Amino acid sequence: MSTQPQEAPAKRLDDLYAKRAQAVAAQLTGPAPQSGATPLSLAFGLADPALFPTQELSEATAEAVAERPDAVLNYGPPSAELIEQIATRLGRQGIAAEANQLLLSYGSSQILALLPEVLVDPGDVVIIEGPSFLGAVRRFEQVGARLITIPTDAQGMDVDALEDSLASLAREGIRPKFIYAIPTFHNPTGVTMPLERRKRLVALGAEYGVLIVEDDAYGDLRFVGETLPSLAALDTEGWVLRVGTYSKILAPGVRLGWAYGQPKLLQRLSMFKLEGANGPFLTHVIARYSADGRLEAHIEELRALYRYKCQVMLDTIAREFPSDVTTLTPEGGFFIWSKLPADLSANALVPLAAKRGVAFLPGTRCYTNGQGDDAIRLAFSYQNAENIVEGITRIGDAMRELRATDH
Amino acid sequence: MSTQPQEAPAKRLDDLYAKRAQAVAAQLTGPAPQSGATPLSLAFGLADPALFPTQELSEATAEAVAERPDAVLNYGPPSAELIEQIATRLGRQGIAAEANQLLLSYGSSQILALLPEVLVDPGDVVIIEGPSFLGAVRRFEQVGARLITIPTDAQGMDVDALEDSLASLAREGIRPKFIYAIPTFHNPTGVTMPLERRKRLVALGAEYGVLIVEDDAYGDLRFVGETLPSLAALDTEGWVLRVGTYSKILAPGVRLGWAYGQPKLLQRLSMFKLEGANGPFLTHVIARYSADGRLEAHIEELRALYRYKCQVMLDTIAREFPSDVTTLTPEGGFFIWSKLPADLSANALVPLAAKRGVAFLPGTRCYTNGQGDDAIRLAFSYQNAENIVEGITRIGDAMRELRATDH
Repeated sequence: MSTQPQEAPAKRLDDLYAKRAQAVAAQLTGPAPQSGATPLSLAFGLADPALFPTQELSEATAEAVAERPDAVLNYGPPSAELIEQIATRLGRQGIAAEANQLLLSYGSSQILALLPEVLVDPGDVVIIEGPSFLGAVRRFEQVGARLITIPTDAQGMDVDALEDSLASLAREGIRPKFIYAIPTFHNPTGVTMPLERRKRLVALGAEYGVLIVEDDAYGDLRFVGETLPSLAALDTEGWVLRVGTYSKILAPGVRLGWAYGQPKLLQRLSMFKLEGANGPFLTHVIARYSADGRLEAHIEELRALYRYKCQVMLDTIAREFPSDVTTLTPEGGFFIWSKLPADLSANALVPLAAKRGVAFLPGTRCYTNGQGDDAIRLAFSYQNAENIVEGITRIGDAMRELRATDH
Repeated sequence: MSTQPQEAPAKRLDDLYAKRAQAVAAQLTGPAPQSGATPLSLAFGLADPALFPTQELSEATAEAVAERPDAVLNYGPPSAELIEQIATRLGRQGIAAEANQLLLSYGSSQILALLPEVLVDPGDVVIIEGPSFLGAVRRFEQVGARLITIPTDAQGMDVDALEDSLASLAREGIRPKFIYAIPTFHNPTGVTMPLERRKRLVALGAEYGVLIVEDDAYGDLRFVGETLPSLAALDTEGWVLRVGTYSKILAPGVRLGWAYGQPKLLQRLSMFKLEGANGPFLTHVIARYSADGRLEAHIEELRALYRYKCQVMLDTIAREFPSDVTTLTPEGGFFIWSKLPADLSANALVPLAAKRGVAFLPGTRCYTNGQGDDAIRLAFSYQNAENIVEGITRIGDAMRELRATDH
């Protein structure tokens, strides 16, 4: 080989990345994928497409762009009417929300992803429920949070265990940054935290100076019983950030969520919302759609449909699952949580169900600590009643097959 | 005063902020506000509401939600058709774009805001044009970039000065992270960089291993002359990231932009796009609208309208501005840039124009280094022809008043 003159090393694009961007982060779960792959999926909390108000949304779009083209289609702020509508809905729940206490977002998942940017330095403690919604929790972890899992029971988060944990952390000089709670129609358990626990949770947040993040994605979809005050309504000292969404009451595909909380906290969330405020078009369309009681009437229809499908699933479970499977009855929301007996592993059940063309979410996908192989989450939100019966029946068959194989 | 028992200091929400969120960042310029405050504003690059295709957008919405409600309104990915349409448009410009080389965003400003997250550690050098679009540049600064401004002339960025700067930095061992360029119908100058300079710019990026960020917000709005190859089309080694938007060819209010570039770079931009991929609803609506040649036909209409309004502004400037004001004639875009003689200060002109109910952008708002008091940016995009004549006439009056006062 001939001697080559000394050459500078080739310049690579990869050399240009900032420190924070050098490693490619693991893909987060994010919104559930379309269930195309599995013919009969009860795994994800998709909305029922049968009740998307397509006609009314089309009319709302036509009216919004025809009547105020410049406000709706040019540069400008999001719809002030939409923010008023959210404030009005909160007002009916005993929360007096001003416009500067509300921040619109591209889905509530955006708020949940921005939160740790504002609150978490690496090693900071964040308290979560076990099980919980990992789409949010994984992001807390990614920013460097040290997660502490508080167990839940049929009344939601165990506030005694929470108090013990807060006291123990305080003795170590550790003040957690926030408690991530889904007190109403929990994801994945469907459980609703009763009033007494809500009051204690809010009091503990104030006592220990820890923000409570109330994820209320499902609260409007109550099938039975009385509405309970949200944590934000019980909070008198500003320790609750409430996160809401149009995904379950209108359509996930519009990607519209919001947060209610202290203006100084929302201001900081906005700092990390790099694209700026939500745009005018979509927010005006949704505001127009929601006006004149249309959204409330639609929510009534949704309640009736999901109540029915939930009951179909519960009835089928009672008939088709082995009698030692314990199923929690939700008062609303999208999900049913079934606890399996010791000899049935949720993850072992997955392939046996898949063989029958059915999918569910094994409980391990709802814990960060390896727990959950003793439970499964079943979504009654997406499939129609016929498919729910078929899907649950096949999962029951899979359970019996697993049991027969194991013994 | 009686002695109080020792109390723990009150717990404050403010104590919970992460380091990165403790200071409240200055509000960035972001998209231009609605021009409501000033009755006759030529300051901001808003779109002309007269040509928003409101009827067609309404029809596209109705068709999209009626035909595929689940894909359009449930959880799911953005419209694949939209990504194909963008690839097809790029294909007509000699760029063979695969789907994984395109990333959708909430406005092109989101891409420009995500960029420094991926590329800039504090102190890193970023090269910008002087003048430039500060909505993007201020964000680079906020992340800690050290900005180096390359002067521009009537052919755009001075590539000799760029080469000198790159060579001088290289001697210091400094490799800039990226060059932010608006080569076509520049904001604010309206200037288009000729082919020879484009080739040299792309070659310099490859030679020095510096990413070139080609902001092409206005490129489709050419009034006269032949379309020139974009930097991305001239690039054979992957050193160009091209940023596009529907804001100028459809409507800013839909907040839809995109980036074309190397998949590994887009993947990293996605990591900081915390809300996840753009949603299905809006992207399906825009794809439906754009299909069957509708978007291309609309762009033809826009070209004719903006060409006309640009000419009206140029004619009025020739008639009404003092003869020693030098005005660049753009071949497309939204803006006209007028250089003022030494005795006219752009900032001194602002209140005299405001007194006459007219606004423009003083050149200082387009530089980070204090330059620009010798120039003004005039947007012909938003106002109708009558208002353009009126606005320019009043600014001409203001110039004469300023001159009379000064001497």
